[in-house]
Amino acid sequence: MNIENKLKELGIDLPEPPSPIASYTPCKQAGNLVFVSGQGPIINGKQIYRGKVGAEISLEDAYQAARYCGLNLVAQLKRFLGDLNRVKSIVQVKGYVACGITFENQPQVINGVSDLMVEIFGDAGRHTRCALGTNTLPANIPVEAELIAEVSP
Amino acid sequence: MNIENKLKELGIDLPEPPSPIASYTPCKQAGNLVFVSGQGPIINGKQIYRGKVGAEISLEDAYQAARYCGLNLVAQLKRFLGDLNRVKSIVQVKGYVACGITFENQPQVINGVSDLMVEIFGDAGRHTRCALGTNTLPANIPVEAELIAEVSP
Amino acid sequence: MNIENKLKELGIDLPEPPSPIASYTPCKQAGNLVFVSGQGPIINGKQIYRGKVGAEISLEDAYQAARYCGLNLVAQLKRFLGDLNRVKSIVQVKGYVACGITFENQPQVINGVSDLMVEIFGDAGRHTRCALGTNTLPANIPVEAELIAEVSP
Repeated sequence: MNIENKLKELGIDLPEPPSPIASYTPCKQAGNLVFVSGQGPIINGKQIYRGKVGAEISLEDAYQAARYCGLNLVAQLKRFLGDLNRVKSIVQVKGYVACGITFENQPQVINGVSDLMVEIFGDAGRHTRCALGTNTLPANIPVEAELIAEVSP
Repeated sequence: MNIENKLKELGIDLPEPPSPIASYTPCKQAGNLVFVSGQGPIINGKQIYRGKVGAEISLEDAYQAARYCGLNLVAQLKRFLGDLNRVKSIVQVKGYVACGITFENQPQVINGVSDLMVEIFGDAGRHTRCALGTNTLPANIPVEAELIAEVSP
Repeated sequence: MNIENKLKELGIDLPEPPSPIASYTPCKQAGNLVFVSGQGPIINGKQIYRGKVGAEISLEDAYQAARYCGLNLVAQLKRFLGDLNRVKSIVQVKGYVACGITFENQPQVINGVSDLMVEIFGDAGRHTRCALGTNTLPANIPVEAELIAEVSP
Protein backbone atom coordinates (compact mmCIF):
# COMPACT_ATOMS: atom_id res chain seq x y z
CA MET A 1 0.00 0.00 0.00
CA ASN A 2 1.01 3.59 -0.63
CA ILE A 3 2.54 4.89 2.60
CA GLU A 4 0.97 8.34 2.31
CA ASN A 5 -2.48 6.71 2.10
CA LYS A 6 -1.56 4.50 5.01
CA LEU A 7 -0.71 7.56 7.12
CA LYS A 8 -4.10 9.08 6.27
CA GLU A 9 -5.88 5.85 7.09
CA LEU A 10 -4.11 5.75 10.46
CA GLY A 11 -4.97 9.39 11.10
CA ILE A 12 -1.27 10.22 11.43
CA ASP A 13 -0.32 13.78 10.63
CA LEU A 14 3.49 13.92 10.58
CA PRO A 15 4.98 16.78 12.63
CA GLU A 16 7.43 19.33 11.28
CA PRO A 17 10.80 17.52 11.60
CA PRO A 18 12.89 19.25 14.32
CA SER A 19 16.03 21.15 13.33
CA PRO A 20 19.23 19.79 14.85
CA ILE A 21 20.14 21.63 18.04
CA ALA A 22 23.85 21.40 17.23
CA SER A 23 26.45 20.85 14.48
CA TYR A 24 24.95 17.87 12.67
CA THR A 25 22.44 16.86 10.04
CA PRO A 26 19.16 14.95 10.53
CA CYS A 27 19.70 12.32 7.80
CA LYS A 28 22.58 10.98 5.77
CA GLN A 29 22.65 8.31 3.10
CA ALA A 30 25.48 5.85 2.39
CA GLY A 31 24.71 3.34 -0.31
CA ASN A 32 21.12 2.22 0.28
CA LEU A 33 21.22 2.96 4.02
CA VAL A 34 19.81 6.16 5.47
CA PHE A 35 20.88 7.03 9.00
CA VAL A 36 18.60 9.30 11.04
CA SER A 37 19.94 11.34 13.98
CA GLY A 38 18.56 10.85 17.48
CA GLN A 39 15.08 12.36 17.89
CA GLY A 40 13.28 13.39 21.07
CA PRO A 41 9.62 14.06 21.92
CA ILE A 42 9.62 17.53 20.38
CA ILE A 43 6.49 18.15 18.31
CA ASN A 44 6.28 21.21 16.06
CA GLY A 45 8.96 23.00 18.06
CA LYS A 46 7.54 22.23 21.50
CA GLN A 47 9.20 19.80 23.92
CA ILE A 48 6.32 17.64 25.17
CA TYR A 49 7.98 15.84 28.09
CA ARG A 50 10.79 16.53 30.56
CA GLY A 51 12.13 14.26 33.30
CA LYS A 52 13.04 10.69 34.15
CA VAL A 53 10.79 7.76 33.28
CA GLY A 54 9.48 5.95 36.35
CA ALA A 55 9.94 9.07 38.49
CA GLU A 56 8.52 12.19 36.80
CA ILE A 57 7.16 10.37 33.72
CA SER A 58 4.80 7.38 33.87
CA LEU A 59 5.30 4.29 31.73
CA GLU A 60 2.23 5.26 29.68
CA ASP A 61 3.53 8.78 29.05
CA ALA A 62 6.97 7.37 28.23
CA TYR A 63 5.43 5.06 25.59
CA GLN A 64 3.72 8.12 24.10
CA ALA A 65 7.00 10.08 24.25
CA ALA A 66 8.69 7.25 22.36
CA ARG A 67 5.91 7.35 19.77
CA TYR A 68 6.59 11.08 19.31
CA CYS A 69 10.29 10.25 18.77
CA GLY A 70 9.16 7.75 16.14
CA LEU A 71 6.95 10.32 14.41
CA ASN A 72 9.95 12.64 14.19
CA LEU A 73 12.10 9.84 12.77
CA VAL A 74 9.50 9.24 10.04
CA ALA A 75 9.11 13.00 9.45
CA GLN A 76 12.88 13.32 8.99
CA LEU A 77 12.86 10.41 6.53
CA LYS A 78 10.04 12.02 4.59
CA ARG A 79 11.80 15.38 4.33
CA PHE A 80 15.05 13.67 3.30
CA LEU A 81 13.58 11.19 0.80
CA GLY A 82 10.72 13.32 -0.49
CA ASP A 83 8.57 10.19 -0.70
CA LEU A 84 8.16 7.63 2.10
CA ASN A 85 7.41 4.94 -0.50
CA ARG A 86 11.16 4.88 -1.10
CA VAL A 87 11.60 3.24 2.34
CA LYS A 88 12.27 -0.42 1.64
CA SER A 89 12.82 -1.48 5.23
CA ILE A 90 13.34 -0.18 8.76
CA VAL A 91 16.61 -1.91 9.63
CA GLN A 92 17.37 -0.79 13.16
CA VAL A 93 15.96 1.31 15.98
CA LYS A 94 17.99 2.30 19.02
CA GLY A 95 16.03 3.70 21.93
CA TYR A 96 17.34 5.39 25.07
CA VAL A 97 15.26 5.82 28.22
CA ALA A 98 16.32 8.31 30.91
CA CYS A 99 15.43 6.65 34.20
CA GLY A 100 16.50 5.71 37.72
CA ILE A 101 18.65 2.67 38.45
CA THR A 102 15.74 0.42 39.43
CA PHE A 103 13.76 0.97 36.21
CA GLU A 104 13.62 -2.23 34.12
CA ASN A 105 10.92 -1.56 31.51
CA GLN A 106 12.89 0.11 28.74
CA PRO A 107 11.50 -2.37 26.15
CA GLN A 108 7.89 -1.43 26.94
CA VAL A 109 8.80 2.25 26.50
CA ILE A 110 10.61 1.81 23.20
CA ASN A 111 7.67 -0.21 21.88
CA GLY A 112 6.20 3.26 21.31
CA VAL A 113 8.68 3.64 18.45
CA SER A 114 8.55 0.03 17.29
CA ASP A 115 4.76 -0.26 17.19
CA LEU A 116 4.60 2.92 15.10
CA MET A 117 7.07 1.57 12.53
CA VAL A 118 5.01 -1.60 12.10
CA GLU A 119 1.73 0.38 11.90
CA ILE A 120 3.12 2.57 9.14
CA PHE A 121 5.39 0.26 7.15
CA GLY A 122 3.86 -3.16 7.94
CA ASP A 123 6.25 -6.10 7.77
CA ALA A 124 8.93 -3.87 6.23
CA GLY A 125 8.75 -1.85 9.44
CA ARG A 126 9.89 -4.76 11.61
CA HIS A 127 13.39 -3.91 12.76
CA THR A 128 16.25 -4.95 14.99
CA ARG A 129 16.42 -3.06 18.22
CA CYS A 130 18.30 -2.14 21.33
CA ALA A 131 16.40 -0.52 24.22
CA LEU A 132 18.74 0.98 26.78
CA GLY A 133 18.58 2.83 30.04
CA THR A 134 20.57 5.99 30.65
CA ASN A 135 20.89 8.33 33.61
CA THR A 136 20.11 11.51 31.62
CA LEU A 137 19.45 12.78 28.09
CA PRO A 138 19.83 16.17 26.33
CA ALA A 139 17.39 18.87 27.48
CA ASN A 140 16.10 16.42 30.10
CA ILE A 141 13.98 14.56 27.53
CA PRO A 142 12.78 11.18 28.87
CA VAL A 143 13.28 9.23 25.63
CA GLU A 144 15.42 9.47 22.50
CA ALA A 145 15.49 7.21 19.45
CA GLU A 146 17.53 6.88 16.28
CA LEU A 147 17.02 4.76 13.19
CA ILE A 148 18.63 3.17 10.15
CA ALA A 149 16.45 2.54 7.08
CA GLU A 150 17.12 0.79 3.80
CA VAL A 151 15.83 2.70 0.79
CA SER A 152 15.36 1.88 -2.86
CA PRO A 153 18.00 3.39 -5.14
CA MET B 1 37.78 -23.93 8.85
CA ASN B 2 34.12 -24.90 8.86
CA ILE B 3 32.47 -22.91 11.67
CA GLU B 4 30.22 -25.77 12.77
CA ASN B 5 33.30 -27.98 13.25
CA LYS B 6 35.00 -25.11 15.06
CA LEU B 7 32.08 -24.86 17.50
CA LYS B 8 32.34 -28.62 18.19
CA GLU B 9 36.10 -28.35 18.66
CA LEU B 10 35.58 -25.51 21.16
CA GLY B 11 32.87 -27.49 22.96
CA ILE B 12 30.37 -24.72 22.30
CA ASP B 13 26.75 -25.78 22.19
CA LEU B 14 24.76 -22.76 20.97
CA PRO B 15 21.70 -21.93 23.10
CA GLU B 16 18.19 -21.57 21.77
CA PRO B 17 18.13 -17.94 20.51
CA PRO B 18 15.82 -15.89 22.78
CA SER B 19 12.56 -14.53 21.38
CA PRO B 20 12.28 -10.74 21.39
CA ILE B 21 10.49 -9.49 24.52
CA ALA B 22 8.81 -6.70 22.52
CA SER B 23 7.81 -5.47 19.03
CA TYR B 24 10.98 -6.15 17.08
CA THR B 25 12.89 -8.82 15.21
CA PRO B 26 16.20 -10.48 16.21
CA CYS B 27 18.00 -10.03 12.86
CA LYS B 28 17.59 -7.94 9.75
CA GLN B 29 19.69 -7.82 6.61
CA ALA B 30 20.37 -4.76 4.43
CA GLY B 31 22.73 -5.42 1.54
CA ASN B 32 25.50 -7.61 2.94
CA LEU B 33 25.10 -6.34 6.50
CA VAL B 34 23.12 -8.27 9.11
CA PHE B 35 22.11 -6.34 12.23
CA VAL B 36 21.41 -8.35 15.40
CA SER B 37 19.21 -6.95 18.18
CA GLY B 38 20.57 -6.46 21.69
CA GLN B 39 20.99 -9.76 23.56
CA GLY B 40 21.22 -10.38 27.29
CA PRO B 41 22.50 -13.27 29.42
CA ILE B 42 19.36 -15.37 28.90
CA ILE B 43 20.21 -19.00 28.19
CA ASN B 44 17.50 -21.35 26.98
CA GLY B 45 14.77 -19.15 28.42
CA LYS B 46 16.39 -18.59 31.80
CA GLN B 47 17.86 -15.25 32.86
CA ILE B 48 21.24 -16.16 34.36
CA TYR B 49 22.23 -12.89 36.05
CA ARG B 50 20.43 -9.90 37.55
CA GLY B 51 21.98 -6.76 39.05
CA LYS B 52 24.68 -4.17 38.62
CA VAL B 53 28.26 -5.09 37.78
CA GLY B 54 30.72 -4.18 40.53
CA ALA B 55 27.94 -4.24 43.15
CA GLU B 56 25.79 -7.40 42.84
CA ILE B 57 27.79 -8.98 40.00
CA SER B 58 31.56 -9.55 40.12
CA LEU B 59 33.85 -8.71 37.20
CA GLU B 60 34.34 -12.44 36.56
CA ASP B 61 30.61 -13.12 36.48
CA ALA B 62 30.09 -10.07 34.29
CA TYR B 63 32.64 -11.39 31.78
CA GLN B 64 30.71 -14.68 31.75
CA ALA B 65 27.41 -12.79 31.35
CA ALA B 66 28.91 -10.97 28.36
CA ARG B 67 29.97 -14.31 26.89
CA TYR B 68 26.36 -15.52 27.21
CA CYS B 69 25.24 -12.39 25.34
CA GLY B 70 27.76 -13.30 22.66
CA LEU B 71 26.48 -16.88 22.45
CA ASN B 72 22.98 -15.52 21.88
CA LEU B 73 24.25 -13.15 19.18
CA VAL B 74 25.83 -16.10 17.37
CA ALA B 75 22.72 -18.26 17.91
CA GLN B 76 20.56 -15.52 16.37
CA LEU B 77 22.91 -15.28 13.39
CA LYS B 78 22.75 -19.06 12.95
CA ARG B 79 18.95 -19.14 13.00
CA PHE B 80 18.77 -16.20 10.59
CA LEU B 81 21.45 -17.33 8.14
CA GLY B 82 20.92 -21.08 8.40
CA ASP B 83 24.67 -21.60 8.10
CA LEU B 84 27.30 -19.70 10.11
CA ASN B 85 29.80 -20.22 7.30
CA ARG B 86 27.96 -17.39 5.52
CA VAL B 87 29.44 -14.95 8.11
CA LYS B 88 32.23 -13.14 6.32
CA SER B 89 33.17 -10.81 9.14
CA ILE B 90 32.05 -9.52 12.53
CA VAL B 91 32.02 -5.78 11.84
CA GLN B 92 30.94 -4.21 15.11
CA VAL B 93 30.02 -5.13 18.68
CA LYS B 94 28.39 -2.69 21.07
CA GLY B 95 28.35 -3.69 24.71
CA TYR B 96 26.49 -2.08 27.59
CA VAL B 97 27.37 -2.69 31.24
CA ALA B 98 24.90 -1.79 34.01
CA CYS B 99 27.03 -0.49 36.87
CA GLY B 100 27.56 2.19 39.49
CA ILE B 101 29.22 5.52 38.70
CA THR B 102 32.68 4.50 39.94
CA PHE B 103 32.93 1.37 37.76
CA GLU B 104 35.61 1.77 35.06
CA ASN B 105 36.15 -1.76 33.72
CA GLN B 106 33.52 -1.98 30.99
CA PRO B 107 36.17 -3.09 28.42
CA GLN B 108 37.17 -6.12 30.53
CA VAL B 109 33.50 -7.11 30.80
CA ILE B 110 32.74 -6.79 27.09
CA ASN B 111 35.84 -8.84 26.30
CA GLY B 112 33.50 -11.74 27.14
CA VAL B 113 31.75 -11.04 23.85
CA SER B 114 34.85 -10.07 21.89
CA ASP B 115 36.96 -13.07 22.92
CA LEU B 116 34.11 -15.39 21.90
CA MET B 117 33.88 -13.85 18.42
CA VAL B 118 37.61 -14.35 17.85
CA GLU B 119 37.48 -17.93 19.23
CA ILE B 120 34.69 -18.84 16.83
CA PHE B 121 35.43 -16.81 13.71
CA GLY B 122 39.22 -16.30 14.01
CA ASP B 123 40.60 -13.17 12.37
CA ALA B 124 37.24 -12.56 10.68
CA GLY B 125 35.80 -12.29 14.19
CA ARG B 126 37.94 -9.25 15.06
CA HIS B 127 35.57 -6.30 15.21
CA THR B 128 35.25 -2.64 16.07
CA ARG B 129 33.76 -2.00 19.44
CA CYS B 130 32.26 0.39 21.93
CA ALA B 131 32.01 -0.68 25.60
CA LEU B 132 29.76 1.62 27.58
CA GLY B 133 28.48 2.00 31.09
CA THR B 134 24.81 2.54 31.83
CA ASN B 135 22.84 3.00 35.03
CA THR B 136 20.32 0.22 34.28
CA LEU B 137 19.27 -2.28 31.60
CA PRO B 138 16.02 -4.10 30.74
CA ALA B 139 14.94 -6.76 33.25
CA ASN B 140 17.91 -5.71 35.42
CA ILE B 141 20.36 -7.68 33.27
CA PRO B 142 23.98 -6.71 34.01
CA VAL B 143 25.18 -6.77 30.38
CA GLU B 144 23.69 -6.40 26.92
CA ALA B 145 25.39 -6.61 23.52
CA GLU B 146 24.44 -6.09 19.89
CA LEU B 147 26.29 -6.84 16.68
CA ILE B 148 26.66 -6.07 12.98
CA ALA B 149 28.03 -8.82 10.73
CA GLU B 150 28.98 -8.85 7.06
CA VAL B 151 27.71 -11.91 5.21
CA SER B 152 28.41 -13.43 1.83
CA PRO B 153 25.62 -12.84 -0.71
CA MET C 1 40.77 20.42 -1.25
CA ASN C 2 43.37 17.86 -0.32
CA ILE C 3 42.65 16.80 3.27
CA GLU C 4 46.33 16.63 4.25
CA ASN C 5 46.77 20.25 3.15
CA LYS C 6 43.59 21.15 4.99
CA LEU C 7 45.00 19.65 8.22
CA LYS C 8 48.18 21.71 7.80
CA GLU C 9 46.14 24.85 7.10
CA LEU C 10 44.12 24.22 10.27
CA GLY C 11 47.32 23.59 12.25
CA ILE C 12 46.07 20.12 13.17
CA ASP C 13 48.75 17.58 13.94
CA LEU C 14 47.00 14.22 14.23
CA PRO C 15 47.92 12.24 17.36
CA GLU C 16 49.23 8.69 17.35
CA PRO C 17 46.01 6.61 17.16
CA PRO C 18 45.53 4.78 20.50
CA SER C 19 45.85 1.01 20.60
CA PRO C 20 42.69 -0.83 21.66
CA ILE C 21 42.74 -1.56 25.40
CA ALA C 22 40.99 -4.90 24.84
CA SER C 23 40.16 -7.65 22.32
CA TYR C 24 39.03 -5.58 19.34
CA THR C 25 40.28 -3.64 16.35
CA PRO C 26 40.16 0.16 15.80
CA CYS C 27 38.64 0.09 12.27
CA LYS C 28 36.79 -2.38 10.10
CA GLN C 29 35.41 -1.99 6.59
CA ALA C 30 32.27 -3.59 5.17
CA GLY C 31 31.45 -2.55 1.64
CA ASN C 32 32.12 1.18 1.45
CA LEU C 33 31.48 1.76 5.16
CA VAL C 34 34.31 2.00 7.67
CA PHE C 35 33.38 1.61 11.33
CA VAL C 36 35.69 3.16 13.93
CA SER C 37 35.76 1.90 17.53
CA GLY C 38 34.94 4.21 20.43
CA GLN C 39 37.73 6.69 21.16
CA GLY C 40 38.44 8.63 24.34
CA PRO C 41 40.50 11.76 25.10
CA ILE C 42 43.83 9.91 25.10
CA ILE C 43 46.52 11.83 23.24
CA ASN C 44 49.79 10.13 22.38
CA GLY C 45 49.32 7.56 25.14
CA LYS C 46 48.31 10.00 27.86
CA GLN C 47 44.75 10.22 29.21
CA ILE C 48 44.01 13.95 29.27
CA TYR C 49 40.82 14.04 31.33
CA ARG C 50 39.21 11.93 34.06
CA GLY C 51 35.83 12.43 35.75
CA LYS C 52 32.24 13.38 35.15
CA VAL C 53 31.22 16.34 33.03
CA GLY C 54 29.42 19.04 35.01
CA ALA C 55 31.04 17.87 38.25
CA GLU C 56 34.81 17.35 37.85
CA ILE C 57 34.98 18.51 34.21
CA SER C 58 33.64 21.85 32.97
CA LEU C 59 31.57 22.17 29.80
CA GLU C 60 34.52 23.91 28.09
CA ASP C 61 36.94 21.13 29.03
CA ALA C 62 34.37 18.52 27.97
CA TYR C 63 34.10 20.15 24.54
CA GLN C 64 37.89 19.96 24.27
CA ALA C 65 37.83 16.32 25.44
CA ALA C 66 35.29 15.57 22.71
CA ARG C 67 37.57 17.26 20.17
CA TYR C 68 40.40 14.97 21.30
CA CYS C 69 38.08 11.97 20.76
CA GLY C 70 37.44 13.33 17.27
CA LEU C 71 41.16 13.72 16.56
CA ASN C 72 41.64 10.07 17.51
CA LEU C 73 38.76 9.02 15.25
CA VAL C 74 40.42 10.83 12.33
CA ALA C 75 43.85 9.44 13.26
CA GLN C 76 42.40 5.90 13.26
CA LEU C 77 40.83 6.51 9.84
CA LYS C 78 44.15 7.78 8.51
CA ARG C 79 46.09 4.75 9.76
CA PHE C 80 43.44 2.40 8.37
CA LEU C 81 42.93 4.06 4.98
CA GLY C 82 46.48 5.34 4.44
CA ASP C 83 45.07 8.46 2.83
CA LEU C 84 42.28 10.62 4.32
CA ASN C 85 41.29 11.74 0.82
CA ARG C 86 39.60 8.35 0.52
CA VAL C 87 36.95 9.54 3.04
CA LYS C 88 33.88 10.33 0.97
CA SER C 89 31.61 11.24 3.86
CA ILE C 90 31.29 11.14 7.64
CA VAL C 91 28.00 9.27 7.99
CA GLN C 92 27.41 9.05 11.72
CA VAL C 93 28.93 10.13 15.03
CA LYS C 94 27.79 8.71 18.35
CA GLY C 95 28.96 10.56 21.43
CA TYR C 96 28.69 9.53 25.07
CA VAL C 97 29.07 11.97 27.96
CA ALA C 98 29.70 10.69 31.51
CA CYS C 99 27.74 13.01 33.77
CA GLY C 100 25.36 13.37 36.68
CA ILE C 101 21.60 12.99 36.30
CA THR C 102 20.88 16.73 36.08
CA PHE C 103 23.32 17.39 33.21
CA GLU C 104 21.45 18.31 29.98
CA ASN C 105 24.15 19.72 27.67
CA GLN C 106 25.42 16.58 25.96
CA PRO C 107 24.90 18.15 22.49
CA GLN C 108 27.19 21.10 23.32
CA VAL C 109 29.87 18.65 24.48
CA ILE C 110 29.67 16.41 21.41
CA ASN C 111 29.90 19.48 19.18
CA GLY C 112 33.61 19.14 19.95
CA VAL C 113 33.61 16.08 17.67
CA SER C 114 31.10 17.42 15.15
CA ASP C 115 32.75 20.81 14.66
CA LEU C 116 36.09 19.08 14.03
CA MET C 117 34.59 16.84 11.33
CA VAL C 118 33.17 19.85 9.48
CA GLU C 119 36.45 21.81 9.87
CA ILE C 120 38.41 18.96 8.33
CA PHE C 121 36.04 17.45 5.77
CA GLY C 122 33.79 20.45 4.99
CA ASP C 123 30.26 19.57 3.84
CA ALA C 124 31.25 15.90 3.53
CA GLY C 125 31.97 16.02 7.26
CA ARG C 126 28.35 16.84 8.14
CA HIS C 127 26.96 13.73 9.80
CA THR C 128 24.01 12.26 11.63
CA ARG C 129 24.45 12.13 15.36
CA CYS C 130 23.29 10.92 18.70
CA ALA C 131 24.63 12.63 21.86
CA LEU C 132 23.88 10.62 24.97
CA GLY C 133 24.44 10.81 28.69
CA THR C 134 25.82 7.90 30.65
CA ASN C 135 26.64 7.42 34.32
CA THR C 136 30.23 6.23 33.72
CA LEU C 137 32.71 5.36 30.96
CA PRO C 138 35.82 3.14 30.74
CA ALA C 139 38.84 4.41 32.70
CA ASN C 140 36.64 7.24 33.99
CA ILE C 141 36.99 9.21 30.74
CA PRO C 142 34.42 12.03 30.53
CA VAL C 143 33.62 11.58 26.82
CA GLU C 144 33.76 8.80 24.23
CA ALA C 145 32.85 8.93 20.53
CA GLU C 146 32.59 6.47 17.66
CA LEU C 147 32.09 7.01 13.95
CA ILE C 148 30.96 5.50 10.65
CA ALA C 149 32.50 6.87 7.44
CA GLU C 150 31.80 6.17 3.79
CA VAL C 151 34.94 5.71 1.71
CA SER C 152 35.64 5.53 -1.99
CA PRO C 153 36.29 2.02 -3.26
